[in-house]
Amino acid sequence: MPDLSRRRLLTGAGIAVGAGAAAVAGAGLVRQAQPAPVQADAPGGSIPFHGAHQAGIATPVQDRLHFAAFDLSTDSREKVVAMLKAWTAAAVRLTAAQEVGGGATGAELAPPDDTGEAIGLPASRLTLTVGFGPSFFDKLKLPRPDRLKELPHFPADKLDPARSGGDLCVQACADDPQVAVHAVRNLVRIGFGTASVRWSQLGFGKTSSTTPDAQTPRNLMGFKDGTNNIAGTDHKQLDEHVWVGDEGPEWMRGGSYLVARRIRMHIETWDRTSLKEQEDIFGRTKREGAPYGGTREHDPVVLDRMPIDSHVRLANPAALGGATILRRGYSFTDGSDGLGRLDAGLFFLAYQRDPEKGFIPIQRALAAKDTLNEYIQHVGSGVFACPGGVRPGSFWGQGLLD
Amino acid sequence: MPDLSRRRLLTGAGIAVGAGAAAVAGAGLVRQAQPAPVQADAPGGSIPFHGAHQAGIATPVQDRLHFAAFDLSTDSREKVVAMLKAWTAAAVRLTAAQEVGGGATGAELAPPDDTGEAIGLPASRLTLTVGFGPSFFDKLKLPRPDRLKELPHFPADKLDPARSGGDLCVQACADDPQVAVHAVRNLVRIGFGTASVRWSQLGFGKTSSTTPDAQTPRNLMGFKDGTNNIAGTDHKQLDEHVWVGDEGPEWMRGGSYLVARRIRMHIETWDRTSLKEQEDIFGRTKREGAPYGGTREHDPVVLDRMPIDSHVRLANPAALGGATILRRGYSFTDGSDGLGRLDAGLFFLAYQRDPEKGFIPIQRALAAKDTLNEYIQHVGSGVFACPGGVRPGSFWGQGLLD
Repeated sequence: MPDLSRRRLLTGAGIAVGAGAAAVAGAGLVRQAQPAPVQADAPGGSIPFHGAHQAGIATPVQDRLHFAAFDLSTDSREKVVAMLKAWTAAAVRLTAAQEVGGGATGAELAPPDDTGEAIGLPASRLTLTVGFGPSFFDKLKLPRPDRLKELPHFPADKLDPARSGGDLCVQACADDPQVAVHAVRNLVRIGFGTASVRWSQLGFGKTSSTTPDAQTPRNLMGFKDGTNNIAGTDHKQLDEHVWVGDEGPEWMRGGSYLVARRIRMHIETWDRTSLKEQEDIFGRTKREGAPYGGTREHDPVVLDRMPIDSHVRLANPAALGGATILRRGYSFTDGSDGLGRLDAGLFFLAYQRDPEKGFIPIQRALAAKDTLNEYIQHVGSGVFACPGGVRPGSFWGQGLLD
Repeated sequence: MPDLSRRRLLTGAGIAVGAGAAAVAGAGLVRQAQPAPVQADAPGGSIPFHGAHQAGIATPVQDRLHFAAFDLSTDSREKVVAMLKAWTAAAVRLTAAQEVGGGATGAELAPPDDTGEAIGLPASRLTLTVGFGPSFFDKLKLPRPDRLKELPHFPADKLDPARSGGDLCVQACADDPQVAVHAVRNLVRIGFGTASVRWSQLGFGKTSSTTPDAQTPRNLMGFKDGTNNIAGTDHKQLDEHVWVGDEGPEWMRGGSYLVARRIRMHIETWDRTSLKEQEDIFGRTKREGAPYGGTREHDPVVLDRMPIDSHVRLANPAALGGATILRRGYSFTDGSDGLGRLDAGLFFLAYQRDPEKGFIPIQRALAAKDTLNEYIQHVGSGVFACPGGVRPGSFWGQGLLD
């Protein structure tokens, strides 16, 4: 696959690592030529980075995830702008299966611009999506969007501060985990001196589909959850529930608000529960994923046929005044917890136009009544404003920061 | 792919969870019919479980890993035998993309035999490989093989007891991580009351190849390491260096000794090192992976052309009296470490006929002199005796325990 391999261009400036050099490197990188076009839908092919919306939201869900939340180590807007310029330039290259940086004469006496572990790998449909948390605005003294508020406390939340919050975030999705990890690592490296990783999460298996009519992948409870997700091609639903419109602020137009939750599953307890109880809790059959009263996964949900406290019934938009989110969750297993239990669960990613009309009312209803709560616990949380898409020559957050 | 889907057979006993029932369930499962034959080399196909050797050692390396070390919670040989019988029966089914257990009348009032998250997924070349640690023999008052000794302390080891040791281990390799995680989880569940997880590790990217002439995958330092690995088809080398022969004990014939090491990489420090220094440390070029003096990855290593303390030179069998191992390592990234650094590295798996002629002399040489030591640290360790292959109707460790 020579067209997709990471070619090292011999022009352009290298990326200087470190705070002092970041502004210079950033400026240099933005001037680099755009990557050569690559096929968008080839196996392992590349997803266009530029567009009206950031890629990685309505994009068909890739197989693997590396999500990182960062804290700023500066209150200098200039340094943050320089980092975001350098990140954008790197993202353009990474999503096109090109190495970060451009090489330079005498490069062997300098650290390589790119850490190298993705050399030769195809783009693997890599997307990189950036969001800004509430504290980002506070630290940089920028006006916070009205809709970006810290999430309320929900009953039974047991949030670990070390896995929550963050001034900004990067969501890397790809079909090859090595490509996603490589991308995050190289952004971490470029950000050195300006932002550092607060927490990060790998997801090994997608649990959502944004592709109409596809089978929903199973979560670690063995169920297809989120069947009635918004399709990435359903522009009416996306415009109504996911993309920020002219309500502003201007830099958020075409953007979306992201809620990330690390949901630990008590899988050992779940596994001791009868099939009937498991199915009653979800309101779907386990094998097929059909809603009660139906026979196939995509049969319509008839609320009256659902157990009153079932997950599907409580989370259904019709029961919540239309509250709707786009889900992009991933399963995780982070070894074991020292008590012989697997540290496993769902890293839940929800995109919406307004958290007050999306995640918050849904989670209020679920936290109060969902019979699933006996088997899960929310242990990490973050909320981020993901700006609209990046135009060629622009950079992540330009409308906010420039 | 109907032939590969996990079919729920309506005959046979379900798996009872819990200590008291394990013996009964195990006996019931062993009597079940063998799964229908499936294609061994189909994409996502299945690898035969039975054979002269355990699968997962010489088998072409799959993309993903879930490795789990267990501690026994009993000193009863009978309970351990029952668990190993039940594990074997489950492994036969899992590696053939069939659900664990066989269902039963009234099953909806009982917990499902299989946790369900792999329903509908192909076998994904799943292999399950079992090994017994030194403490397994001590706890069950069984004679320990002469070659199974605790590893010596190596300079700069910083082993975490919570990530080291274990009475027994299961290595699950598959091309789909959901399939590997599902398999480990279901074995954990079956073992409840007899053994519990001491530690476990996910590996997201293979770093080794046992396929001749393939490009070696890159580790997180960006290098192709382990180019001169033993090929899974090189029976002469396998017989000489990997498989235990007639030196005994009898139950180890066709088996192998596994050394597992969790090697943390200080990737932030590495990334600040010049390309020349990185290449000098490995003795290979980064881009192509060619040994110094060569131009292609598989060109022969000429020791005199290598820097004296380079990794390739120190680990070369010719420099170590022929010490040779079969490598099946995986990259890992387990989030970040609380100091803003990624907790990333190499989970190193080495198989050999005798650790004293394999890993131990290699690591002695590397620990003393390898210039790579500035950038890595061994933080977890285990050694296990992996018995020979399982014959139909037999079970893991039968020759040792029966």
